[in-house]
Amino acid sequence: MTKLPNSNNIRIALDVMGGDFAPENEVKGAIFAFNELKNVAGIEFIFVGNEQKIKDVLARTEHSGLNYSIIHTDEIVTMHDDPVAVLKTKKNSSLYMAAELLAKGQADTFVSAGNTGAMLSVSTMLLGRIKGVSRPTIGTYMPTIKSTPTFVLDVGATIDLKPRFLYEFAVMGSIYVSHFLGKDKPTVALLNIGEEETKGTDAIKETYSMLSQSHLNFIGNIEGRDILAGAADVVVCDGFTGNIVLKLAESFLNILKFKIKDYASKGFLNKLKVGMMLPTMKSVLSEFDYQEYGGVPLLGVNGVVIIGHGKSTPKAIKNMIVRSIEFYQKGINSRIETALQNN
Amino acid sequence: MTKLPNSNNIRIALDVMGGDFAPENEVKGAIFAFNELKNVAGIEFIFVGNEQKIKDVLARTEHSGLNYSIIHTDEIVTMHDDPVAVLKTKKNSSLYMAAELLAKGQADTFVSAGNTGAMLSVSTMLLGRIKGVSRPTIGTYMPTIKSTPTFVLDVGATIDLKPRFLYEFAVMGSIYVSHFLGKDKPTVALLNIGEEETKGTDAIKETYSMLSQSHLNFIGNIEGRDILAGAADVVVCDGFTGNIVLKLAESFLNILKFKIKDYASKGFLNKLKVGMMLPTMKSVLSEFDYQEYGGVPLLGVNGVVIIGHGKSTPKAIKNMIVRSIEFYQKGINSRIETALQNN
Repeated sequence: MTKLPNSNNIRIALDVMGGDFAPENEVKGAIFAFNELKNVAGIEFIFVGNEQKIKDVLARTEHSGLNYSIIHTDEIVTMHDDPVAVLKTKKNSSLYMAAELLAKGQADTFVSAGNTGAMLSVSTMLLGRIKGVSRPTIGTYMPTIKSTPTFVLDVGATIDLKPRFLYEFAVMGSIYVSHFLGKDKPTVALLNIGEEETKGTDAIKETYSMLSQSHLNFIGNIEGRDILAGAADVVVCDGFTGNIVLKLAESFLNILKFKIKDYASKGFLNKLKVGMMLPTMKSVLSEFDYQEYGGVPLLGVNGVVIIGHGKSTPKAIKNMIVRSIEFYQKGINSRIETALQNN
Repeated sequence: MTKLPNSNNIRIALDVMGGDFAPENEVKGAIFAFNELKNVAGIEFIFVGNEQKIKDVLARTEHSGLNYSIIHTDEIVTMHDDPVAVLKTKKNSSLYMAAELLAKGQADTFVSAGNTGAMLSVSTMLLGRIKGVSRPTIGTYMPTIKSTPTFVLDVGATIDLKPRFLYEFAVMGSIYVSHFLGKDKPTVALLNIGEEETKGTDAIKETYSMLSQSHLNFIGNIEGRDILAGAADVVVCDGFTGNIVLKLAESFLNILKFKIKDYASKGFLNKLKVGMMLPTMKSVLSEFDYQEYGGVPLLGVNGVVIIGHGKSTPKAIKNMIVRSIEFYQKGINSRIETALQNN
């Protein structure tokens, strides 16, 4: 990360009320980020949310040197709020106000572990789309058996399958991944029901030919079984398919845990066996820990927006903040604009 | 299973060359089925494939009392053959000839562990569709944390999403599952990106309303995370989504095995730990054994067609044969016709 003069602090608008453990994890995550970066970058936090609750967390957490201000609001966007209704009904919510700071140029990045749909609608409306982008997109890292995760997009922001949309997702995902996985020419694959280019619906076939003719490092179609095998750095699909893939994959570990518990409940010996097995299982599956990735960007909007899981831990929030700073410093959005204007 | 007079044997056209271990597993599976059913049903096997190879397997396998005939052919449909090209180029293949026996009324059921796409195209052309069925469909059982599996359809036979298609899949899947899981009114769910009926594409929303107005036991939308949790007996989706869901889910165990191997390879202690853990893991995951289900039906065609996995063991083939007999005896297809004519 580039060292910045303090006169040029990076201003982070943090919706501290977004996550399931707000504002505890948000504020602590900010302090973690500060401690990790204080020697390499000047950071200024704008905490948006309930002032008293924020101060309570600060009071019991060592944060000397933390550069922050608080914008108070009691309104909160819940996980149940309709993303579009929020645009009209919750303009005083911490999520909306934090996004507004970015839109008004009073912040450089916007970070929240709140309602993803609301972040999508609010950010798209307040920030607008990058020139050349038809639809914004949200991707997600999925762990693989390789050393690096796969970046799958779209996972729900844009559910209509149009070849141009998927092509743009591929461009945005490729640029993003090239910076964050440090891969020069990340491989891009199209999620399909077979490897041959003749497979899939007409829209998918058209997408295949657009990707083949692009400057991307397109390696062709991959199937559902190839995702976790890490067949490509970037996997492109429509948001409907991607959302189902993501949620199915996330459920796998829970199913496994349930099965193990269930087995353990069937007698003392089973319980003993499981007790002996668990530590090993935990080590085996350690790399499937999503925390490390620390949120994902909302790609295609005019601004740096990082979205986190509602269950984000302070460590995850810290990583989201770090990601947002890298995203900002590396000028990802201008690279996306350039790439799409040339095509 | 109803006891049949021997004068009324059930004739099974078995493509013995379809699977990866053909004809070994096919012939042995037939013998297993005969031994299991000889006291309850009269079965007559028509083995279609290489006569000498069939006789070799029979020569080294006890099969006294087995009622069979052999139709010799050397032509085989491979897993790489184009399903549509096969219609013209491989009319002398074991797969095509076995399907033909059913079409000509010389067999009551058609069973193969061969090229699924070819079984779909050949069966649809030779048998035709059931009155009221727009598109044939292939479903699959997916293991759940509940005591019964979930039947997901379509998984690749019909990739275009049309509300009417999905409605028909729901009707066919519901009738099939009610018989094979012995559930009176199986629950039916629509795979979507959210639970609210406002979620999804226009086609998905229209499907939702068709299912709501139907006589099915429709419980609404479920998400990707709900599939393995066993939220519904029947899960309906388009063949593109279903195929990706199936292959992703099938890859989970392989990923897990890879992770465990990988962990074991990192030192003697790890290897020891894994060695101690494996037997327990195997027991924990035992219910994820697909063999028991023994293939899936091609629903919507005029005839009983059971499709098996290329890796089908003799046990799996045996179960496929048993399924095909049950399917035939229960008159599933006439029930489907009746159900769709009333709607």
